[in-house]
Amino acid sequence: MIQPTDDGESYELDSPTSLPKASGFLWNERMMIQANCRGYVVAQFMQPEPAKYSHAPNLEAKSFMQPEQGYYAHHPGRFVYVKDEATGQVFSAPYEPVRVVPHQFSFTVGQDRIRWKTQSRDVAVEMGLTLSKDEVLELWRVKIQNHSRSRKKISFYPYFTVGYMSWMNQSGEYHPELQSIVCSSVTPYQKYPDYFKNRDFKDKTFLMAEQEPLSWEANQEAFEGEGGIGSPTAVHDDLLSQGDAKYETPVCVMQYRIELEPGEEKEYRFLFGAAQSEQEIASVRQRYFLQDGFSRAEADYRASIAEGRGCLSIQTPDAALDNLVNHWLPRQMFYHGKTNRLSTDPQTRNYLQDNMGMSYIQPSVARNAFLVAAGQQRPTGEMPDGIILHPEAELKYINQVPHTDHCVWLPVCLQTYLDETDDYGILDEIVPFAGGEESASLFEHIGRAMEWLIQNRDHRGLNYINQGDWCDPMNMVGYQGKGVSGWLTTATAYALRIWADLCEKGHRPDLASEFRAQAQKTNAAVNQYFWDGDWYARGITDDNVVFGVRADQEGRIFLNPQGWALLSGAADPDQRKKLIAAVTDQLETPYGVEKLGPPYTKMREDVGRVTQKYPGSAENGAVYNHAAAFYIYGLYAVGEKEDAYRLLRKMVPGPDRADVLQRGQLPVFLPNYYRGAYRQAPRTAGRSSQLFNTGTVPWVYRCLIDGLFGIRGGREGLTVAPQLPEAWPGASVRRTFRGAVFDIVIQRVPGIEGTVVSVDGQPVEDGVIRTFEAGREYRVSVKIPLAR
Amino acid sequence: MIQPTDDGESYELDSPTSLPKASGFLWNERMMIQANCRGYVVAQFMQPEPAKYSHAPNLEAKSFMQPEQGYYAHHPGRFVYVKDEATGQVFSAPYEPVRVVPHQFSFTVGQDRIRWKTQSRDVAVEMGLTLSKDEVLELWRVKIQNHSRSRKKISFYPYFTVGYMSWMNQSGEYHPELQSIVCSSVTPYQKYPDYFKNRDFKDKTFLMAEQEPLSWEANQEAFEGEGGIGSPTAVHDDLLSQGDAKYETPVCVMQYRIELEPGEEKEYRFLFGAAQSEQEIASVRQRYFLQDGFSRAEADYRASIAEGRGCLSIQTPDAALDNLVNHWLPRQMFYHGKTNRLSTDPQTRNYLQDNMGMSYIQPSVARNAFLVAAGQQRPTGEMPDGIILHPEAELKYINQVPHTDHCVWLPVCLQTYLDETDDYGILDEIVPFAGGEESASLFEHIGRAMEWLIQNRDHRGLNYINQGDWCDPMNMVGYQGKGVSGWLTTATAYALRIWADLCEKGHRPDLASEFRAQAQKTNAAVNQYFWDGDWYARGITDDNVVFGVRADQEGRIFLNPQGWALLSGAADPDQRKKLIAAVTDQLETPYGVEKLGPPYTKMREDVGRVTQKYPGSAENGAVYNHAAAFYIYGLYAVGEKEDAYRLLRKMVPGPDRADVLQRGQLPVFLPNYYRGAYRQAPRTAGRSSQLFNTGTVPWVYRCLIDGLFGIRGGREGLTVAPQLPEAWPGASVRRTFRGAVFDIVIQRVPGIEGTVVSVDGQPVEDGVIRTFEAGREYRVSVKIPLAR
Repeated sequence: MIQPTDDGESYELDSPTSLPKASGFLWNERMMIQANCRGYVVAQFMQPEPAKYSHAPNLEAKSFMQPEQGYYAHHPGRFVYVKDEATGQVFSAPYEPVRVVPHQFSFTVGQDRIRWKTQSRDVAVEMGLTLSKDEVLELWRVKIQNHSRSRKKISFYPYFTVGYMSWMNQSGEYHPELQSIVCSSVTPYQKYPDYFKNRDFKDKTFLMAEQEPLSWEANQEAFEGEGGIGSPTAVHDDLLSQGDAKYETPVCVMQYRIELEPGEEKEYRFLFGAAQSEQEIASVRQRYFLQDGFSRAEADYRASIAEGRGCLSIQTPDAALDNLVNHWLPRQMFYHGKTNRLSTDPQTRNYLQDNMGMSYIQPSVARNAFLVAAGQQRPTGEMPDGIILHPEAELKYINQVPHTDHCVWLPVCLQTYLDETDDYGILDEIVPFAGGEESASLFEHIGRAMEWLIQNRDHRGLNYINQGDWCDPMNMVGYQGKGVSGWLTTATAYALRIWADLCEKGHRPDLASEFRAQAQKTNAAVNQYFWDGDWYARGITDDNVVFGVRADQEGRIFLNPQGWALLSGAADPDQRKKLIAAVTDQLETPYGVEKLGPPYTKMREDVGRVTQKYPGSAENGAVYNHAAAFYIYGLYAVGEKEDAYRLLRKMVPGPDRADVLQRGQLPVFLPNYYRGAYRQAPRTAGRSSQLFNTGTVPWVYRCLIDGLFGIRGGREGLTVAPQLPEAWPGASVRRTFRGAVFDIVIQRVPGIEGTVVSVDGQPVEDGVIRTFEAGREYRVSVKIPLAR
Repeated sequence: MIQPTDDGESYELDSPTSLPKASGFLWNERMMIQANCRGYVVAQFMQPEPAKYSHAPNLEAKSFMQPEQGYYAHHPGRFVYVKDEATGQVFSAPYEPVRVVPHQFSFTVGQDRIRWKTQSRDVAVEMGLTLSKDEVLELWRVKIQNHSRSRKKISFYPYFTVGYMSWMNQSGEYHPELQSIVCSSVTPYQKYPDYFKNRDFKDKTFLMAEQEPLSWEANQEAFEGEGGIGSPTAVHDDLLSQGDAKYETPVCVMQYRIELEPGEEKEYRFLFGAAQSEQEIASVRQRYFLQDGFSRAEADYRASIAEGRGCLSIQTPDAALDNLVNHWLPRQMFYHGKTNRLSTDPQTRNYLQDNMGMSYIQPSVARNAFLVAAGQQRPTGEMPDGIILHPEAELKYINQVPHTDHCVWLPVCLQTYLDETDDYGILDEIVPFAGGEESASLFEHIGRAMEWLIQNRDHRGLNYINQGDWCDPMNMVGYQGKGVSGWLTTATAYALRIWADLCEKGHRPDLASEFRAQAQKTNAAVNQYFWDGDWYARGITDDNVVFGVRADQEGRIFLNPQGWALLSGAADPDQRKKLIAAVTDQLETPYGVEKLGPPYTKMREDVGRVTQKYPGSAENGAVYNHAAAFYIYGLYAVGEKEDAYRLLRKMVPGPDRADVLQRGQLPVFLPNYYRGAYRQAPRTAGRSSQLFNTGTVPWVYRCLIDGLFGIRGGREGLTVAPQLPEAWPGASVRRTFRGAVFDIVIQRVPGIEGTVVSVDGQPVEDGVIRTFEAGREYRVSVKIPLAR
């Protein structure tokens, strides 16, 4: 049903109906496109805010990608209708909109290309999509092949949806000199200042053909006729009617009529994208088709994606994990780091964590991001809710709701950057505070962030939650100014502990001990107020009600306070044992570990919006992978390698068929959630949200680097201390680190007690590889004890 | 193809494909529903802002109804699938989504009911819709009839779309105790204060059956399967699978299996609507089905619509005009007056004009509205951009853009109220100004409004336009504070003239002469600065460029300055002749008179957003009926009865087939526009916007009352002075006026020079009927000269 290609660079699905929402995504610095196995597409580009060039059939709300995206007949998509001119029979590739069950089908998601192959009877259509590396352009190759034993006459019709562009102005027509259907619009607005903002928008959508079409249609209604999208009237006619759309819903359809010998294949190339003017479209034609920029652009795009390969290549007994880690996880991390989720004001915590991931791929990008973020910190130490990345951007949506956790992420994320690079010089960079009146070293900035966390507490030493912490919709625990967050207090302890370590390593032992003392004090408060006997509570409301405790019927246990208590050191060995047992018992499912349980089924006014989300979806008890990754990282931090690996493995769909069907997703990215409520609603549990924007990925990478394979950087060098699951006899890892490459072979051998490391045959006493040079490769042998 | 029923109460269409967007609308005080001939529906209700209970398949933008509403496969709608259990053949009523061409079809729009009859082969389905008069409830009757000669076994499936309710929480399930499918959701929000605002929202959508269904389905994807909406997999199964929707797109589908003897018909009743809770739904069931409130509710609704009958019933040589005026025009006016277009902050000009119309139907409602509007006037005399009708409402959308015309409408609209009622006492009502610190009589309020118009001018005495006048998107003529409006200056002259008259009649001759002098002065300025030789210019931009003049390639002539120059008295007889000729020549089309011409095809930055609208759509040169009605009213004001009638008649689709097809609308309402650009784009010219929210209707009513039939009220009584077109030999009019009824017969007779009026046989010297009593009926004979 699903399988990776031999080179691991692609993943294939053999049916358009078994995982109907299975999708892949491509991106460049201007745009993102998610395409599913049936031909439906969600795409947006930045100008500077997200915009569409292939719209819904109605006036759609500006919103983020929707979890478990609902598709419908007229959902935006890219299709090719095919008509056998001898029989009049019609099918469509890849599957929608005609839905003829294909005789052969594959949907192949590659690193830099998505491909569909559909064979219906004896005609095969291959559609291949890649992007320009820096323009808002889809590059399409469409191949038609005759699989019969006789000559065939075929009409085929690329059908690219444009949708309802604007109530102000929309139209479409064919421009012969551009060999394009150009659909024009005016982005709707009402206030005149927006005219100046919108003036240079790419309000035109075009489909450009390399080969001149026989005919075309730009009017969706005229194309469909009474046959409808499933059997368009115009496809049954001899020729498309060359119509235009005048304040009518436009569409891009072209007709080609070809004759194919048995076995013969013909290829056609198209561009689909957004432009500001006809001149811009003419320039695209010049560059891509009149000169052959098309193939070069494909190669350039491939190269641009290849830059995101990451620093880890593994070979383990778990092939699916290998595939994910070697091909997809760094790609997804790279996407986050390059695009900041296509937002001009990413949430501060997302921005920092996404760049934590970028530390493993392009540390200079991460470096810059930490300085940008610190430059928007207030002189009080408080971090803003979002980081403004464009001069015209402003804080929007959730960034208008005050959250209290953003300071935590500064040391936590910077630690990874420093582990990877040892660039402690960054701490001496002078950065302004917001407002620009004051500047200080990054070291001072982070110190103030820590002070802000220490100050922003109640008399018990517990951190105020205000209208949210990491959990955005937990917005009514503390909106009256009194409620506190158990997780945030614990996270503060962890952040202080990290920062104390970094101070130590940054030659400020005085500050180190101060912050270390604060961390201990904070952990003590966590234990005093939040330990519920078997696990930690989630918080205390404005009305002084502790929640996330045994006494609660719903939301009895939350994952995050447990995972972070492992990290912060709040939990002693006995507490660890208890909380791990509680999590296993109450939150673990075949699809991973749930964020809370049991999910809320009705509004709890002293907790907030999270309790109104559908039970088992998103923050209300889904297997929310970001939280799961924290927890797994915590398990590795305390050496619980079996639980850690088991849960890590549950993040990846498969390998068995039933699991794949239930998740409904290809293992080409980690989704932000799988449906939870496993105990309450097993029918839907495990279903992927299909959302690939998530802070999960850098934490999973950290789990691999710092935990599972134990090849973490530090001031002294590379520390080798793997935590393989007992079931593994060994593993091979290729690790790039500060310019050097380490080929690491880990093997279980009899007769040893601890880990034994040697580099190029030389033993390394304490497992810390201190001596190495950039540009060189090292063979590292790691021997670990047999499983008990 | 289309025809009224014999009683004129309904209009019928015999095909679902000839006018695919043909629609009717129903409303009550809480909601509005527009349903088209194919089964698609647009509906919204107020809580207090507009909300949906049958949603699009995606997250739709909050917006107004869209012009020329685009329908698509999964557009919200109400359908019944029918399966012949013997053959397995399936069709759907009324036509969508299966699109089997019916053997018999009718779509009947009535005053208080919309009905579809679809016969496919030998099974007929009748669907009838009416509303509750005060709840958010659709009342449906579905009848299935066997037209064959043998017994038939049929499954039928009411399929009511619910759509994508919310990304926060959506679900659907069958509640046996309610005999309903209940779909629940949480309206999406992010900020906690919205929780308190939304807490009592009717976030549940339900379909309730009177008769227990055999089976049901609440999960849209499960229902459709791979068959899709055009051939749902579940309909081809024996029984619906009784599924639920858990954070999946819900739907309301029920299955009934019936056996019908030849000719036998069975009826089923359903309710579809919105509710806050299951208890509320239980109460609906109790009231509508357990007791038979259903039929009573239908009768109550019928009665509530009948209250809007208006004051005019006509019989003329023009049957289509009779039908419109006797049945549909007052109904549309009543809709506006009762609902204020389902807005909590109607634009001030709309609110005043809609209530101008209400003066003919329920003058007490109009009276109250004028006082409410005046109560939001600023002490400077300036009127706000919108009138707040709900304590939680605020000025939104276009009401955040400053317009300068709102003061004009106070005297203009009040005049009609005073003509109808002679309630000059209203002028003495004491009304506060906005802010509440000052109060004054309505008389004083309007005087200040006039003073504001006089003050808010440049050195030439021309009225500033700021960011718009009547033409909302004419937003960049004067945004820099200098540009002036030719139309507004003229309209000010007209308003001053009206107000002078009202002062005179209100026994303030001193003020009357003062305002009359101001009117004359204003008209003089209009002639000095705006007369372009053959017509009046539209305005002068911030950069002192006159536009709407001969020298312009686009937007050369605008309709409004011409119509209002007829009203204000600015145009002398020679100018009148010239401007009428120019309008006829440059703006008249077979579908009415265009608002401007030629339409703009590109942005003109010193005119604004109107020039960016699609050429021939809406304000950019459509046959914008509101402006056309002003012009026609102006023609009647100067006695140009032939032009006036010809243009009035062009507002109504038909009678010939080609015209009806081109308009695409049933003559059950006047749309806000028909597509213009007749000279540039004849393919689309004439097409109806299908929007029934428009200020057109009260002005057309005034054209009938004050112009065509000349039966206008005044201080002295009822003035009879018809302006029938020459082609008419006569007409009969039943006019209700101040409680009395006048049966008026107008006849052309030989041998008279002027109009000769008699009441109950008694001659009325000057045509003014002064003596009459409420509650009595009078027979009025009006003799007019033969046509020349």
